Amino acid sequence: MSGSAYADLLGLVAFGELLAFERMAGDARLAPDLRRRAALNGMAAAEIANYRRLADRLTALGVPPEVAMAPYVEPLQAYHDSTEPRDWAEVVTKAYVGDAITDDFVREIADALEEPDRALVLDDSRYADFAAAEIRVAVADDPRVAGRLSMWARRLVGEALSQAGRVAAERATLTALIARDGRVDVPGLFGSLTTAHTARMAAAGLNN
Amino acid sequence: MSGSAYADLLGLVAFGELLAFERMAGDARLAPDLRRRAALNGMAAAEIANYRRLADRLTALGVPPEVAMAPYVEPLQAYHDSTEPRDWAEVVTKAYVGDAITDDFVREIADALEEPDRALVLDDSRYADFAAAEIRVAVADDPRVAGRLSMWARRLVGEALSQAGRVAAERATLTALIARDGRVDVPGLFGSLTTAHTARMAAAGLNN
Repeated sequence: MSGSAYADLLGLVAFGELLAFERMAGDARLAPDLRRRAALNGMAAAEIANYRRLADRLTALGVPPEVAMAPYVEPLQAYHDSTEPRDWAEVVTKAYVGDAITDDFVREIADALEEPDRALVLDDSRYADFAAAEIRVAVADDPRVAGRLSMWARRLVGEALSQAGRVAAERATLTALIARDGRVDVPGLFGSLTTAHTARMAAAGLNN
Repeated sequence: MSGSAYADLLGLVAFGELLAFERMAGDARLAPDLRRRAALNGMAAAEIANYRRLADRLTALGVPPEVAMAPYVEPLQAYHDSTEPRDWAEVVTKAYVGDAITDDFVREIADALEEPDRALVLDDSRYADFAAAEIRVAVADDPRVAGRLSMWARRLVGEALSQAGRVAAERATLTALIARDGRVDVPGLFGSLTTAHTARMAAAGLNN
């Protein structure tokens, strides 16, 4: 992988973490109690810790983090602007779905990475269990919520893939990372992302 | 100091940190570039790290953090709701003023604390320099900004003292902490807070 492709990928993941941090912290006010509010803020804080590791790595590679992140500001902002949660159940569903689909996407690309970058971008979140448990509580409280959250999750994936497609079309160096035998199989990639998403929805008690 | 007064103070500072964290992270989108945006998020992350230490300490004292924080949700929320920054210069001024006046207030109370609690509530921020430097840049770019930011800072202090007065009136255990010889000198306390604030304004190139 070229140095520029490294920086491109690290920049994408770094800005993803930075923005996830901001949005989660902003969503915390929707928590039904202070315990859950603090838990979501803890989740957000984990994102900023990841961001820092990535920014430090970019700096070590001689690329200012803000330069590496710049191309992703617009598409990632657009994703979040079009998926503003309206209540706590939507907040935790967004955290659960967004975190997981980002991880899956990065995992697809990370095959091409060497250490320490592979470990850096694949920082496993310990918080998926919290989010999934919150979704199950919301559904148990009111079974009709399952339908609404399932629809919400589909919208999240749709918006995420739409912005990912936009990034792929504009960033050739990044797209090259997901090429197999010199060919980029975007439908195949989207297919495997959606399959993993469907399995996760079922695990949280939602349908696809 | 009684155990209940300890918990009251730790709860106040903890919720202050939690909310400062959320608000700073939410304000970061107003940053003029990604470097500054990441710096403000770094400032926010330092607040959540302080929050965690305080929450852990409360748990160790046998008080659930959410119980200790509950009385302060409304007044602190009211402070932030009435002081929503409209641009980056207001964001950094709020971070500078808010952080400092909270520290001063806590320092007044912390005289009554023993270690480790004293050190816990008096966690010095390394970020005041960043915020002060940003204010000076904004004023250097456009000298008319100094007047607007000075007025903004006065409003921040006014709102902060107004909510502090409300807390003092409602939480007798907390008020007892700032008593000297059994007497609570609220005007004296407010006077010393405003004096320190005026000195800081001058240091950042603003007037009072």
